[in-house]
Amino acid sequence: MKHNRKVIVYIATSLDGYIATKEESVHWLDETEAAGDNGFAAFYETIDTVIMGKNTYDWVVNQELEEFPYKGMTCYVYTSSDTAVNNEDVTFVQGEVSELIQQLQRQPGKNIWIVGGGELLHHYIKENLVDEYIITIAPIILGSGIPLFKELQSNIHLQLEQVKKYAQFAELHFLKK
Amino acid sequence: MKHNRKVIVYIATSLDGYIATKEESVHWLDETEAAGDNGFAAFYETIDTVIMGKNTYDWVVNQELEEFPYKGMTCYVYTSSDTAVNNEDVTFVQGEVSELIQQLQRQPGKNIWIVGGGELLHHYIKENLVDEYIITIAPIILGSGIPLFKELQSNIHLQLEQVKKYAQFAELHFLKK
Repeated sequence: MKHNRKVIVYIATSLDGYIATKEESVHWLDETEAAGDNGFAAFYETIDTVIMGKNTYDWVVNQELEEFPYKGMTCYVYTSSDTAVNNEDVTFVQGEVSELIQQLQRQPGKNIWIVGGGELLHHYIKENLVDEYIITIAPIILGSGIPLFKELQSNIHLQLEQVKKYAQFAELHFLKK
Repeated sequence: MKHNRKVIVYIATSLDGYIATKEESVHWLDETEAAGDNGFAAFYETIDTVIMGKNTYDWVVNQELEEFPYKGMTCYVYTSSDTAVNNEDVTFVQGEVSELIQQLQRQPGKNIWIVGGGELLHHYIKENLVDEYIITIAPIILGSGIPLFKELQSNIHLQLEQVKKYAQFAELHFLKK
């Protein structure tokens, strides 16, 4: 039985489609006038699982926050190393991204957030595994950086569900068609 | 005296930021469920001048429409050829894009629409000559094509003015900061 747990890309980009600078910085998001949490808390309520790549995990850990920011979520981290050791916060995984999704959708639960980075997102997008895109567009043209979308061999048709304005951010919701 | 005639980029892109396929087709816009004119008529009322590149002009002419679609507008076409002959619809121009804009802003008039294509848009964006971006995002990931934004050496900070939803299109308005 497949449960209706949506796979969600929820991410901020510049107007020219970058999720970070080439130096992997997102400082330009802080520079932008924000209004509260821009809907993040409400989104976070809808998920119970997060998936990220090893680089993104390392970046998060290197922020030296008081605690792991995805505490309480089931957190999977994709790595190419088969010696990575799970800890209380994360489970390391390898292999095809579609396999983990199929496995998760056989279990009941809330939605699944594909956090990043660019390479992992590309795998999910390319295989059309994303059920919903929530893209927050910041009012800046970066000029260069790490793009959200890479080259694909075919089109992906979506359905525009809603648009929202959070002070300086435009948030677009698209569903898989 | 400088008149307050805004330089406007008003254009549709795919979610991954392409203004056309690699074959210069925009058929994917027609495939998308539209609602009336998506605000085009109202926008068109605010301008009296259009500027485009020679490739875009040739593309328009090759559509074999009953009449030139920008009839009644002052229309400038950038070309690298110094033998192009003006006609009743268009004036061919060469040289720096900023010069024409300065010249137009010394005359009273409505706003100025930079129609395209990609190369010409890049010149205006790069030199920060664009006062307002109206970007209509279609619900499709094309995977490849002609990008609206090319690489730049520095950031451009904008201000989000409004977001609109036209059936399947999200329209974002940004002002130069």
